[in-house]
Amino acid sequence: MCTARVLYVDTDPMGMAHHGAALRWFEQGRCEWLRQRGRTYRDLEAAGTLLPIYELRVRYRRPARYDELLAIHTELGPVRPVRVVFRYRVVRQADGVLLVEGETHHACVDRQGRPWPLPDDLHALLQAHAAPSNDAGHA
Amino acid sequence: MCTARVLYVDTDPMGMAHHGAALRWFEQGRCEWLRQRGRTYRDLEAAGTLLPIYELRVRYRRPARYDELLAIHTELGPVRPVRVVFRYRVVRQADGVLLVEGETHHACVDRQGRPWPLPDDLHALLQAHAAPSNDAGHA
Amino acid sequence: MCTARVLYVDTDPMGMAHHGAALRWFEQGRCEWLRQRGRTYRDLEAAGTLLPIYELRVRYRRPARYDELLAIHTELGPVRPVRVVFRYRVVRQADGVLLVEGETHHACVDRQGRPWPLPDDLHALLQAHAAPSNDAGHA
Amino acid sequence: MCTARVLYVDTDPMGMAHHGAALRWFEQGRCEWLRQRGRTYRDLEAAGTLLPIYELRVRYRRPARYDELLAIHTELGPVRPVRVVFRYRVVRQADGVLLVEGETHHACVDRQGRPWPLPDDLHALLQAHAAPSNDAGHA
Repeated sequence: MCTARVLYVDTDPMGMAHHGAALRWFEQGRCEWLRQRGRTYRDLEAAGTLLPIYELRVRYRRPARYDELLAIHTELGPVRPVRVVFRYRVVRQADGVLLVEGETHHACVDRQGRPWPLPDDLHALLQAHAAPSNDAGHA
Repeated sequence: MCTARVLYVDTDPMGMAHHGAALRWFEQGRCEWLRQRGRTYRDLEAAGTLLPIYELRVRYRRPARYDELLAIHTELGPVRPVRVVFRYRVVRQADGVLLVEGETHHACVDRQGRPWPLPDDLHALLQAHAAPSNDAGHA
Repeated sequence: MCTARVLYVDTDPMGMAHHGAALRWFEQGRCEWLRQRGRTYRDLEAAGTLLPIYELRVRYRRPARYDELLAIHTELGPVRPVRVVFRYRVVRQADGVLLVEGETHHACVDRQGRPWPLPDDLHALLQAHAAPSNDAGHA
Repeated sequence: MCTARVLYVDTDPMGMAHHGAALRWFEQGRCEWLRQRGRTYRDLEAAGTLLPIYELRVRYRRPARYDELLAIHTELGPVRPVRVVFRYRVVRQADGVLLVEGETHHACVDRQGRPWPLPDDLHALLQAHAAPSNDAGHA
């Protein structure tokens, strides 16, 4: 879990966080998820593995308002050799109300954008935390 | 259709547009779609109808690169009294290759965030352009 | 002082934080400065006082790189009845190297954008922390 | 000259464009300035010359509001072998009222961030359009 505060730059004339702000919270969520497990996306990228997003889904349940403190809960979805899914729940820290949920699907590629399996140690780390999947093995 | 150019501020260390840039292209797409039909979102909002996004889906097919000119194709999905769906296809202007596609689902609400039907004239305008739907009338 | 981490969305193809990211760090700096003194910009705005920026200056000393943790040091410049200046120094947390410095000049206005003096209690609070000024009293 | 429209994502709870939006307009301004003279920043960068901003100044004269069409006027300030200044005036297209003005100071560096003179042909092109300077030759 990590936290983020809604900044003025994140809000729109409706007085709520713009829908794009969720992408920033999600990025923060998955990067801190990795860091809390001893890895960073920076190291991953330095080692030649990139994880660009190929699919994004967001569901906005309630508005996040200016200056509210948010808790970002991140978990792994199914992990396959060349694909990783992260799932997010953003709640209002003060009362735990769910504001936004979503998921990002990442391809594992090399610097030229070609499919490239996760390094073994990272794959093992992710597998250990991955959600059970109905379709494991069908990558 | 409208166009956008990939700015430096839109790009990331992979040399491609960050996934968040798509949200900007989508907003531009639906606003110009309305404008080309004689309406603006500004007028809609001034008249008391807001269209916040409650669901967002994006599929990234190929990277959009710095300085590329993009064509944004927008069309309406199903229209219901209190919900509107817009769909987008962002293609590289130079060769027509599909880069990003997605959709935004909008609730029709008043300034207090309560469900609020579209004004009749806008509803009629949208209906006239709406994609056929299997589930029309089930809103 | 508060901290921020350089996210992927903040970085550009040069591998460093885009110059626009500094504005976010500055906003975070001044909001946390207020909060640490028992006030929030949200309350200020709720009470009818807005502080839009009318001048911005930024000096980029060294690049801030992806995933670096930054310390944002904020202090007040001269305070006058209808103008406030905040100054910022953003340093790399790991070694204290100065990366960015700048200042934002804010007008005090009401909701209609007319000049409007700071509430007395906030003015007193700011005065107590303000940098000495050669031109105090000439507002 | 080029144009930009104020998007919803650019605006804040005051109903005006957030101060950060100016940086996007400035980038668009200088890139189109180059393009209209037969060059692109992309080509420049591909040839190994980068132009990171080391100083930014913005003066906000009047608010830019949602959906307004803006005209961005760009001109060159003094040009030196390893430094370039661009100046901007952003006016409301409808009535020519000045909304924002500012300038960006760019260093000419190579990919490693070391000072690197502009390519001769670009230097000549910029010189031909540069504003007269009191301090030319003192770079």
